[in-house]
Formats: sequence, structure tokens, C-alpha cells
Amino acid sequence: MRQSQLFTKTRRDAPKDEVAKNAQLLIRAGFIHKEMAGVYSYLPLGLRVLNNIIKIIREEMNAIGGQELLMTTLQSPNIWKKSDRWRDDAIDVWFKTELQGGGELGLATTHEEPIAAIMAEYISSYKDLPRYAYHFQTKFRNELRAKSGIMRTREFIMKDLYSFSRSDMEFRTFYEACAGAYKKIFDRAGIGSATYRTFASGGSFSKYSDEFQSICEAGEDTIYVDEKKKVAVNKEVYTDEVLADLGLKKDELVEKKAIEVGNIFPLGTRFSDALGVRFKDEGGTAVAPVMGSYGIGPGRLMGAIVEILADEKGIVWPRGVSPFPVHLISITGGNPSVVQEADRLYELLAENDIEALYDDRDLRAGEKFAESDLVGIPTRLVVSEKTVSEGGAEISQRSGGTKLVSDSIVVEELIEKQRT
Amino acid sequence: MRQSQLFTKTRRDAPKDEVAKNAQLLIRAGFIHKEMAGVYSYLPLGLRVLNNIIKIIREEMNAIGGQELLMTTLQSPNIWKKSDRWRDDAIDVWFKTELQGGGELGLATTHEEPIAAIMAEYISSYKDLPRYAYHFQTKFRNELRAKSGIMRTREFIMKDLYSFSRSDMEFRTFYEACAGAYKKIFDRAGIGSATYRTFASGGSFSKYSDEFQSICEAGEDTIYVDEKKKVAVNKEVYTDEVLADLGLKKDELVEKKAIEVGNIFPLGTRFSDALGVRFKDEGGTAVAPVMGSYGIGPGRLMGAIVEILADEKGIVWPRGVSPFPVHLISITGGNPSVVQEADRLYELLAENDIEALYDDRDLRAGEKFAESDLVGIPTRLVVSEKTVSEGGAEISQRSGGTKLVSDSIVVEELIEKQRT
Repeated sequence: MRQSQLFTKTRRDAPKDEVAKNAQLLIRAGFIHKEMAGVYSYLPLGLRVLNNIIKIIREEMNAIGGQELLMTTLQSPNIWKKSDRWRDDAIDVWFKTELQGGGELGLATTHEEPIAAIMAEYISSYKDLPRYAYHFQTKFRNELRAKSGIMRTREFIMKDLYSFSRSDMEFRTFYEACAGAYKKIFDRAGIGSATYRTFASGGSFSKYSDEFQSICEAGEDTIYVDEKKKVAVNKEVYTDEVLADLGLKKDELVEKKAIEVGNIFPLGTRFSDALGVRFKDEGGTAVAPVMGSYGIGPGRLMGAIVEILADEKGIVWPRGVSPFPVHLISITGGNPSVVQEADRLYELLAENDIEALYDDRDLRAGEKFAESDLVGIPTRLVVSEKTVSEGGAEISQRSGGTKLVSDSIVVEELIEKQRT
Repeated sequence: MRQSQLFTKTRRDAPKDEVAKNAQLLIRAGFIHKEMAGVYSYLPLGLRVLNNIIKIIREEMNAIGGQELLMTTLQSPNIWKKSDRWRDDAIDVWFKTELQGGGELGLATTHEEPIAAIMAEYISSYKDLPRYAYHFQTKFRNELRAKSGIMRTREFIMKDLYSFSRSDMEFRTFYEACAGAYKKIFDRAGIGSATYRTFASGGSFSKYSDEFQSICEAGEDTIYVDEKKKVAVNKEVYTDEVLADLGLKKDELVEKKAIEVGNIFPLGTRFSDALGVRFKDEGGTAVAPVMGSYGIGPGRLMGAIVEILADEKGIVWPRGVSPFPVHLISITGGNPSVVQEADRLYELLAENDIEALYDDRDLRAGEKFAESDLVGIPTRLVVSEKTVSEGGAEISQRSGGTKLVSDSIVVEELIEKQRT
């Protein structure tokens, strides 16, 4: 896409009330727009990143047998009263609203009840199980405070998957498969090495649940990391008893601030019981399936990537989520043959299915480079009088390193990068 | 996908309170789930159709220069007070809610105000125009009654595009380009021949707006169609004066019921004025850009397709939106060589990038065929003892016609169909 056509521009300053680094950088670079505290629109560059993250998550959920649906955000009290979670003291972040004709509605904060109500219509026999259903849907949470940019918002898209299994063992097998899928997701999103599977409270159904926590000073959580074993323990369950249970030693653990980028949670039969999901087992007995829930917020993940990887010049996108794989920059100095050469390279990339952001604007080199650093596309291609006279373009990485190469090598290198 | 794994099943009956044909068929076939009146979840098959429709719309909006973003559903009163539309008598379908810390919020019914507020930050010069921005986002409308299935709901995804132009002439050029794109969308969605560009009221900004109305008995609108000229007039502006203005003659018009599947609407400078969007023209004068809005509801379009094309046996999907291009059905009669042959064909299709819904379940032929008719996938492939003994599979169209062909011809035909 030609940057002269893009409707956003970079800005020198973020709004004064914006305290989070992720939102400051994303607003300055034109990725998001702040509607109000805790509510952000995604502008074209931001939506591209969000969609890249969603695509990664979708592929990994499909790979473990997930079936995608789309449940609603408007919620009738009926099903939530069955599980006793309509009460504001059971879920303390409900937004409630009202029908014109009378009758209260809620905006979904989570979807255990609606998915169980749907499954109750389709599950009747052990042959109908196991089932794994997920969706990407806006969640609303009436947070009292919102101060972590796009990492804790009042409106956000969430991927939540729900599993329905015939037995604890079948449930645990899927639970581990999903933990494996989550590891792949965070690897592909570029923060795998900073992310630890973390023991957390399991609520009333299980000893533990598992969080995926990414080490970051801006995180709201405190965890204790065993770097050798590549696991961590959330402060909320950090007791001598738990450590003994997990075989971890206090002096091998390091305290860190971290961002919860995902969680997987055993639900037992709490919701299948409450919503009347039953299957006949092979002996003909009616049994409630064992459920689990598995969440990742693509927006929070995007915020975490910015927090963890940004440097003093701006955002640094990993290749897998970058809005464009390459930022093509022309430094023309008013020379039409440089424009022509940059245009030609832009077309050549497109012909090879490499969609570049092409800074074709009439700006000074220093300005273009500073903006490009802020926007954070991993690979930069510069076409200038100098590179044209030397017969090629300059290719450099946002994370460092520059070299002069010919057009054909540029294309080859980029195709190779897309593959890996 | 193997149908034995799909978590939905067809049902004999729709809920008793469901009066609309589109919702009855879609619920029975397992495409949607009714959460409450006017609120439906999309199950895996339904989401596939919805996403196919969204993909068509997105491609056509990008082709005319649209830039995709994602605005929020939570709305602060501030910007809506500027245009005086926060009042319930200005927009009579607001859902309102409240922040825990105090302060009213609304759920977006439309997005003129938020897009104008965003553009105000990025438009300053005539060089920044024209701009075309769109999103697919959930809209909430607090309808008093909801009785047309998925065609009029309280929660639905809408594609709304907003144009910002330097002059009326520039606006009109885009307006016609968008009308052309809409024609392509309805053609690709399979209801092009039933759909008429229809003169409707232009509100206070323009003589007329344009609706795209699809002829259908279940429609809520009444239009007058000139079949030769391929245009229509909405009853709301059907006066002698308007007909004279449009050069239409009463005796060449036929009254029809119709479904509004899209609309394009001139907005003048009402919202750019209210929200303070200004650009400096070439002479340095500050001017408000001329705006237009362009809406299509993918869910309503899906409902209209069902209403218009369904027959007595069930849904009939056009190829461009069908959840799968082909329904592969095995009639094994317990014969393992038939299972083997059907499995082989399923793999062969997958290898050729043709994703089939594969009814591999152990059911009687009659049951499978009736379900397949209800689900409405356009092409059906049957593998049975008979077809195996005759050296191939039976290929038939949902709309009629059957023949026996070899595997390789099946694949060739389906690849050919996908291309066209």
C-alpha cells in the first residue's frame, strides 16, 4: 500500500492521559485511536496486526480440533441465572442494559453459559463427544480502572475455546494439547522466549489452572520463574505447600512482573450441570461432560508484543504479526529516475505476493526513517540516488544491520523470510 | 470436514416462536442458534456463510479504495452530543449502559460520529482527500419488535463505509463507484437478478438516497419496479412529482415487496461540520469535506439469500457463499470398500484444495439426502456400492440434474466451478 494513500499519519505525541507505553506508541504510530479510557479503535495498520494474531490463533485452534462459531454479546438473564452468575457479586464487571419493551440484558464478559446451552441441544450420546468449540468475539468488562493501554480494556476481542469431554482423562489430554498449541501461538507471535506456563489458582474445580505469563515490567501480575524448568508460579498460589507439591525450590525461583497473555482453566461439570448438558455413556447412564475453557485476547497479546519488544525508537514487530512484511522507502531528492526505480521495485514485490508499505511521500529522509522506526516493520528497503547508482536497494532490519543488494536478491530474501 | 465430527446436527423443528422462514430453515439446518428474539449465534456452518459474504464485500470495498479499520461499539456521549444524536428521539434504537465509576455509555447503532472524530485528527489539507474508510463491526439496535429472523436483529454485523470528499462532484463519482461495487457484491452473492437499485428518501442532504432492494414476499418494504430500466422507487417517495423527476411512468411500474440489502446515502457536511473535520483547499480556505455512508449487513444478506432461493426441500446456497463447495455423501450399506472409496475421494478433493463437507455418518440414504437438501450445498457427490461398481461417483446439483462420472472428472469439474 502506498503510504501517501493511507489515511493515518504518525503523531509526535500521544494523548496526555495515556500512561501505558503500548498505547502511547500505538497511538503515535497510527495503529489505534483512543475513544475513551479503556476503549480503543483499531486503525488500518493496527487492524492488520490484530488480524495477523487472530489468524495465528485460529490456525492453531483448528489444528487441535477446534470448531469456530460466533456467539452473541447480548445476553439474556435466563441462562446466567441457572449458573447463578447474573448477580453483580458473581461477575463484578457486567455491563447491563435494557430492552425497549422491558427486560434486562447483559453484555457478555465470557461465554461458558451460552456455549453450554448450545451444546445441550447437540450432545446426547457419548458418540457426540469430545467437542471443542471456540469463537473470536467482543467481550465487555466494566472495569473500574483501565490503565494498561490495550492490555486491559472495557471492550476487546477474545478467543475463548470450550472443551466438552467424556472423562477427566479425555479432558486432561485435550488440556495438554491446548497448552502445546498456546506455546506455538506465543512462539509465532514473537514472544515465546519471554512466556512461561505458570501455575495459578484452579478455583473450586481443580488444584491449578495454567496461565501463560510473559515477563515484562509493565505486567500487572507477579510470578516466580524457574528458568531451568521453564515454568513459573503465580504469586496467588506461591506457598511452601504448593512449591512442595510442584517439586519447585524457593531458591531456584526468581520474582518477575509479567503479563497474562493466555490461560487454560478446568471447569469440571459446574456449567454442564447448571445448563443441563448430558450424554448417555456406553452403559446408558446420563453423565455431565467435563468442561474446560481456554482464552487468549489478541489485543492484549498485541499490547504485550509492543511492551516487550519496543526499543527507544519505537515499535519492533516480529515478522509473524507485522502489518506489512516490508517497508519500502524512496528517498528521491526530486529525481524522477529514483521514483521510477522505487515504483518498479514496489510492483516487483507485489508480483511476488509481497505486500509492501511503500513510503512514496515527498518528505525528508530523516523524517521517513524516524517514522519507519516508530512504525516498526521488521524489514526496510531504501531506494535512493545512491542505491540506484550502485545498482540496487538497501535492505536493513529494524533490529539492526544494513546491506546493499540487487532487486532480485531483495525479492529472494523476502520470499525466503516469508517461508520461515 | 467430516460431518461425524461437526458439533451441530439438523433438527426436525425450529423453535415455535420463530416465524421467519430464513431463521426456521437456518435453525433446522444447524446454521444458527436463537439466543432470544432478534439475537442469533452463528454456528460453524452459518459462520462459514457469513464469512464468505464478508469476504466478497471486503474485496469489493478494497477494489474501490476502501481502507479497513475497526471502530468500537462502546460509545461515549461526547461525540454524539456534538451532532445532537445522543437523544433517544434522534436515534430511537439506542441501547444505553453505565460505567461502574459513573457515566452513561451507548452501544453503537451506526458510526458517522466516531469516524468523523477520527478523520478530524488526520485530515488537514486537500492533499489528504479523498478518503474512504470502512469496518465490519457489531451494531446494536434496540428494536421494539424483531420478527424477520436474521434480517432484522438487535445485534448484527454491519459493513459501513464512510467517504470524505473535497467536492460534491468528487463525492458523486465515488457514490457511483460504490453503487457499481454493490451490484458486483449482490451478483457474487447470487441474488443480483432479484436486486434493484431503488430511489429512496435522501433526508435533508440530498433529493434521494439509493437502496438496493431484493424482490421477496418476506420483505418489509414496498417498491415500484421498472423492469426494463432495472430501477425501482421506494413507496416512501412514490409521488407523481418524483416519478416525473426521474422520468418514470406509473404504468410501467410494478408493485413488489422487497428486502433492503444495502443502501448508499449522501450525508453532505452534517457530520464533518458537527465534529469539526476541516481541510484547507488549494486557496487556503478551511472547508468541511462532503461525506457519504454506505451500508450492507452481511447477516441480513444471508437471510435474504435463504428467503429468495430456498425451495420446499430446504436452503439452496449460491456457490459464492456456500459453507462448502461440495457435499460428499457415502452410502456404504456396511461395505468397507465403499467407505474406502469415499475416503479416497475426500482426500483427493482436499489435495486439490476443495474442502468438502463429508457425510461419513452411519445413516440411511434417505435421511442423508433429505438432510443434504436442507443444508443446501450446491454440488453433491454420492459414493455408493452402485457408483463404485460402475467406476466413479454420482455428481448432482442442489438445483437439479445428476450424472455418473469418474473421480478425475469430478475434481476437474469442481476446480472449474471454483474458478468461475
